[in-house]
Amino acid sequence: MRSHYCGALGTADIDETVTLCGWVDRRRDHGGVIFLDLRDRAGIVQVVFDPDTEEHFQRADRVRSEYVLQVRGRVRARSESTVNAAMATGAIEVLGKELEILNVAATPPFQLDEYTNVGEDVRLQYRYMDLRRPEMQNRLILRARITSAVRNFLDREGFLDIETPILTRATPEGARDYLVPSRTHPGHFFALPQSPQLFKQLLMVSGFDRYYQIAKCFRDEDLRADRQPEFTQIDIETSFLDEQEIMALTERMIRELFTEVLQVELGEFPRMTWAEAMERYGSDKPDLRVAMELVSIDDLMQQVDFKVFRGPADDPDGRVAALKVPGGAGISRKEIDDYTRFVSIYGARGLAWIKVNDLAAGVEGLQSPILKFMPEDVVQQMMQRLQAADGDIIFFGADRRAVVNESLGALRLKVAQDQGLLRAGWAPLWVVDFPMFEDNGNGGLTPLHHPFTAPACNPEELAANPATALSRAYDMVLNGTELGGGSIRIHQREMQEAVFRILDIGETEAEQKFGFLLQALQYGAPPHGGLAFGLDRLVMLMTGSQSIRDVMAFPKTQTAHCVLTDAPGEVSEQQLRDLNIRLRQLRETTVPAAGE
Amino acid sequence: MRSHYCGALGTADIDETVTLCGWVDRRRDHGGVIFLDLRDRAGIVQVVFDPDTEEHFQRADRVRSEYVLQVRGRVRARSESTVNAAMATGAIEVLGKELEILNVAATPPFQLDEYTNVGEDVRLQYRYMDLRRPEMQNRLILRARITSAVRNFLDREGFLDIETPILTRATPEGARDYLVPSRTHPGHFFALPQSPQLFKQLLMVSGFDRYYQIAKCFRDEDLRADRQPEFTQIDIETSFLDEQEIMALTERMIRELFTEVLQVELGEFPRMTWAEAMERYGSDKPDLRVAMELVSIDDLMQQVDFKVFRGPADDPDGRVAALKVPGGAGISRKEIDDYTRFVSIYGARGLAWIKVNDLAAGVEGLQSPILKFMPEDVVQQMMQRLQAADGDIIFFGADRRAVVNESLGALRLKVAQDQGLLRAGWAPLWVVDFPMFEDNGNGGLTPLHHPFTAPACNPEELAANPATALSRAYDMVLNGTELGGGSIRIHQREMQEAVFRILDIGETEAEQKFGFLLQALQYGAPPHGGLAFGLDRLVMLMTGSQSIRDVMAFPKTQTAHCVLTDAPGEVSEQQLRDLNIRLRQLRETTVPAAGE
Repeated sequence: MRSHYCGALGTADIDETVTLCGWVDRRRDHGGVIFLDLRDRAGIVQVVFDPDTEEHFQRADRVRSEYVLQVRGRVRARSESTVNAAMATGAIEVLGKELEILNVAATPPFQLDEYTNVGEDVRLQYRYMDLRRPEMQNRLILRARITSAVRNFLDREGFLDIETPILTRATPEGARDYLVPSRTHPGHFFALPQSPQLFKQLLMVSGFDRYYQIAKCFRDEDLRADRQPEFTQIDIETSFLDEQEIMALTERMIRELFTEVLQVELGEFPRMTWAEAMERYGSDKPDLRVAMELVSIDDLMQQVDFKVFRGPADDPDGRVAALKVPGGAGISRKEIDDYTRFVSIYGARGLAWIKVNDLAAGVEGLQSPILKFMPEDVVQQMMQRLQAADGDIIFFGADRRAVVNESLGALRLKVAQDQGLLRAGWAPLWVVDFPMFEDNGNGGLTPLHHPFTAPACNPEELAANPATALSRAYDMVLNGTELGGGSIRIHQREMQEAVFRILDIGETEAEQKFGFLLQALQYGAPPHGGLAFGLDRLVMLMTGSQSIRDVMAFPKTQTAHCVLTDAPGEVSEQQLRDLNIRLRQLRETTVPAAGE
Repeated sequence: MRSHYCGALGTADIDETVTLCGWVDRRRDHGGVIFLDLRDRAGIVQVVFDPDTEEHFQRADRVRSEYVLQVRGRVRARSESTVNAAMATGAIEVLGKELEILNVAATPPFQLDEYTNVGEDVRLQYRYMDLRRPEMQNRLILRARITSAVRNFLDREGFLDIETPILTRATPEGARDYLVPSRTHPGHFFALPQSPQLFKQLLMVSGFDRYYQIAKCFRDEDLRADRQPEFTQIDIETSFLDEQEIMALTERMIRELFTEVLQVELGEFPRMTWAEAMERYGSDKPDLRVAMELVSIDDLMQQVDFKVFRGPADDPDGRVAALKVPGGAGISRKEIDDYTRFVSIYGARGLAWIKVNDLAAGVEGLQSPILKFMPEDVVQQMMQRLQAADGDIIFFGADRRAVVNESLGALRLKVAQDQGLLRAGWAPLWVVDFPMFEDNGNGGLTPLHHPFTAPACNPEELAANPATALSRAYDMVLNGTELGGGSIRIHQREMQEAVFRILDIGETEAEQKFGFLLQALQYGAPPHGGLAFGLDRLVMLMTGSQSIRDVMAFPKTQTAHCVLTDAPGEVSEQQLRDLNIRLRQLRETTVPAAGE
């Protein structure tokens, strides 16, 4: 039905007779001639119909925006004065000879080139129209290129694409599961996988050596952040490689991907320990596009009487840190108030600051509500440590370590964005040497990654000092976003049991939940490890999109609703009966029928 | 940790020092020396440990089947008398220098090389062991190669891999949906997709032009046949191509796949109308490896008095057909009784037969219980039409057309298998010109494919003669299995509404179930069509497996149970509360707690 894509035509095609299929992007009359901008996946080309084409001209006159046309015509150069440099095909046009209307179209619910004025709910309701916009087309085309490049890399490296089940048993990632009632096993439920974690470990036990899958994962979480009920993971697992080899291999994958798809050279990724990342950036996924760092001043503050600073400085679980904003002395009181509110989200009870107006003038040249609480020599030492310069502002955090890290870490990013201190480009890194566990808030421990992560020590050492034990986990971070995370896994039953004991998972519970894994570890499990990348987030970063919803064809809203198809929907009483369930709220409003 | 795969070593590696990782397939002592067969994904190699390697020999002495080892050693040629031609690496062995035990293994629950003695339930319970068997490894490796080859073909042809939702609205394929209760929309349910049909059509409306996805699909059906609750589809859709172009493209895909993966040239696929396939083979997915055909003899039987044949011959909905089995006169009475029982499964009330012992002797040379009901000239005409020869047997079906087609069609395949009349090799074909609808048994019509299939006529003609209208559907059949099916879709709202009317789907129901599709068809839907291949079935055929369970890593049993993980499982009362559901059977046995 067609010889060329509209958007692929160029001067090389001049004098060719072409057949095009596409949508009317715009129709104009000008000087008795009809100009149609015809659009397809590849782009837009201008088609001109003269009155001498008779019935075809008549049809061209009838078409409206988004009609679907088949057009035959001859490619010709545009006259110099009409060349449109802003258009990929702007040097040529097609002189239309024949026009067939393949389908008509009602007036679009919104202009496809002015989407920004349209609410996201309308865009989602008419998603098939929204997806016609070149911006959205290009995002999904790039997504397809990215998955294809990733697959080709992994195929070349000997990874096998193996499918794991969607209807499965509850997985232990900790988020809420989506459940599927079983019809054949009344009262029992499948869970949709939060990740293929245990299955990919079993595939290693099976000897497949190198596995990958671009896998759908599901979490029934509250979608306050930029999350979706279903998301996609580039899931990788391999046997007989250590963490250095796995990191090298997956780093090469991402580097080649950026070269191939974006023509960007990322270079070798720096590595940073978790402890250093927390110390310098207050975050386990630091955005290295921002030069500012957190600087600890606990030792200095142990010399002051100012209780707000002295308390956390003396507390082994506390921290006092400073964040110097170069050239930030111009930040207004109102902005400082805004930042104070901002850090309060993260639990900070205030935001102390010092403006550096004239260092040479000593304390007189500084401006701050807290100066009066500090001896001059401490202030001077602090200025030196921070390498403060005239025109800077310094913010302070003093609280429990976690609060200081979170609040100053977040402030660092916000200030950088507001004050133009976020450099362009890409800043990847690896974060390594994570703790095995973190405080669960109830005096116990919870895994920082998941309970199958191998520790960097033996079971006895782990049992002796669980709170300080490090794991063999690694996260890949790009521009402050966690792109992927993984670890060497536990491959011996006694170590897995040691971890379960630390997590206070009793033998019965372990057997019930993970019995098949513990058993598999007994039958010759190889050393293995892997990694999972969040594909949606990767595509979002690579396309410069603001939300993962913009890189998914049919996303759901923040309440997990598909506006387009109106899912979830109601189901019949018979379907519920088949599944041996009933609705809870029905009980409150209806009387059970006899015989039930 | 390793320099080579075990199974990849050969005479080219002689004198190389190699490091291998793998599982102990077998351990033998012989003449004071230990022989280890070490196995990995690529195959098995023999490793020899002499006592002079001291502690490594000691370790080698301790290893048992399925221990995980790392071995360093030197590749050497085997002496001529010890070369093992049955083994890919049988010309060499590795003289072990160092041995590390990476993991121990309990005694395997079954011998990995003698699986046939083990029930499938045990294989599924210890799936990670079963998957170590080279046969299973090779099946999943071939599956990965097949998906990779398919993806590469479609990528080259400009198809975009686009993901469609798993949490979606009930789709209209007609099978039972798996449902997922929504937590955020109490009383509402997502359905898992039976296919991405409507989403891929919407992607065409969006202008993506060429889409594919290797997509998980779900059907909550009774798994009597070789079915799984979740299965995988190679899902393809394209715009602006007609059925000839789509068939040509996808045929090329399958041909190239067979060339690339199996080094088999399938050649051009013959095409056959649905009507011809039913007439000649009694099936819409004929196995052309069997030469035998059904031959209609209605006209001849209209001349006889024998009511069992005369009735169906006179009935426009009936059929009388013969199936000649060349050389089948030796089939015993007991076998004929078995075949009679076999056709009764398909509703046949008997199985008449004639053995051709000596044609030259006329009716005297024939042997049959039904000969006495037939005039000699009719018998002679029948023998001529069937080109019967001495030593043949002829079976007869006389009943409603559907019963004759199903029973003789199935008998054709069964007899071919039993009597060695199934030729080896591959027999692909396209079946085309399907009817739009079939009788739904209640005086109405039901779509033969799905209600979005385009008819080969206009809406008025369709409305006038729905029962005889043909569709623009096509099925690809290989060796009697439907590999894939597709169609040109309806792309205009009035046609879609005409089909809904014929299916007795009222306007309200249509709007409620398919409103978003009808609306999308109004906004400039392009002509489009596509196809979906069953990947599991394709891999099953290409690997020569007997069941799709053998080409899935973690299949479920016939009751949709995962024996390995014991899914589906029980869930907590809190989870049910979160989802606003309760179990039905609980009501019968427990008293609701206060406050509920």
